[in-house]
Amino acid sequence: MSRVRVHNFGVSLDGFATGEGQTMESPFGHADGRLMKWFFGTRTLRAMQGESDGSHGVDEAFASQFGPGIGAEIMGRNKFGPQRGPWEDHDWNGWWGDNPPFHTPVFVLTHHPRPSVEMEGGTTFHFVDAPIEDVLKQAREAAGGLDVRIGGGPSTVRAYLAADLIDHLHVVISPIILGRGVRLWDGLEGLEERFDIESVTSPSGVTHMTFTRRT
Amino acid sequence: MSRVRVHNFGVSLDGFATGEGQTMESPFGHADGRLMKWFFGTRTLRAMQGESDGSHGVDEAFASQFGPGIGAEIMGRNKFGPQRGPWEDHDWNGWWGDNPPFHTPVFVLTHHPRPSVEMEGGTTFHFVDAPIEDVLKQAREAAGGLDVRIGGGPSTVRAYLAADLIDHLHVVISPIILGRGVRLWDGLEGLEERFDIESVTSPSGVTHMTFTRRT
Repeated sequence: MSRVRVHNFGVSLDGFATGEGQTMESPFGHADGRLMKWFFGTRTLRAMQGESDGSHGVDEAFASQFGPGIGAEIMGRNKFGPQRGPWEDHDWNGWWGDNPPFHTPVFVLTHHPRPSVEMEGGTTFHFVDAPIEDVLKQAREAAGGLDVRIGGGPSTVRAYLAADLIDHLHVVISPIILGRGVRLWDGLEGLEERFDIESVTSPSGVTHMTFTRRT
Repeated sequence: MSRVRVHNFGVSLDGFATGEGQTMESPFGHADGRLMKWFFGTRTLRAMQGESDGSHGVDEAFASQFGPGIGAEIMGRNKFGPQRGPWEDHDWNGWWGDNPPFHTPVFVLTHHPRPSVEMEGGTTFHFVDAPIEDVLKQAREAAGGLDVRIGGGPSTVRAYLAADLIDHLHVVISPIILGRGVRLWDGLEGLEERFDIESVTSPSGVTHMTFTRRT
């Protein structure tokens, strides 16, 4: 059975998974790169940038789980871009350049559908206006038996957690207090009862936590 | 120079340091004992209960820092008890029995002063209605050169953190989502810039974090 997975999902100590004030230049708003700093030096991230160097430690062990076994991703519109309302710029297709690091179909949740966009390297963005359960069905079909990754942002991950549709959640707690932004954990009281949880700290200062859904 | 320290301060993954609905039977409200579960089996806690067994591991290494070098504690009224407004019951003196585990003067922040209460074992509760800076001065004098512990609850720790009066903060993150209660981190955006922070996970599932104020 294909699983639904979340990977490399950065959260601040006060529970924010993105900051306030998202713009084209600042996908994470005032959080800037701080929630993903642990990721920047890893071999996995460096490979996405076309480089062959990078770290081999605890952070890389988790970072490298991102791709293998994944056949489709679902992301919220705010992960795709900072535009709101009807699409005004069809030429801008995400923060990732011509060859995004997904290499699978990607379903973007939006109330404003538009034609699919095929990028280099196997990524195709589909824009869908449907309940999250239905989008998951579409993504599973597109994944052809492989797993589906819920890519974020926080509102999207939270919605799938609330609906009990996530099998594996990997969050990375950074020791920073963001103070404002979008919280991951709101409305999820008692979430721990549905998961086996492990934690491990990294020399980079973050704590990796894995939530594995009890069967 | 005497330091101002916080020890064994439990926080949920979503940032709550106590639950909702404090009563005489439930000092932590709906959180019950969940934020302090890691502490229950330690040698330090067992010694407070008059027993000589208990664990010797990571949790105990941190738990044992609670007492040594401390000459006075400051606590918020809600840590002392669930009464609100004017004191109606002078016979009830906290959740800790006749011999509380503080063994020093304890300053209780309240807008309703009352006579001091001397307990067994060296603990004397003083009830003070004054700005937190002034209470700290009183506590430092009472501590006679030793350190002052800020005992909680979250509103009290947060107020002293906001005033930049804490030198050493030990928090213990439990992998639970409380959903409601009193948050520790609110209003503390950028706190990490003032501290050196270390994290270590324990086999009990919690993550111990120490914040050491930069000099």
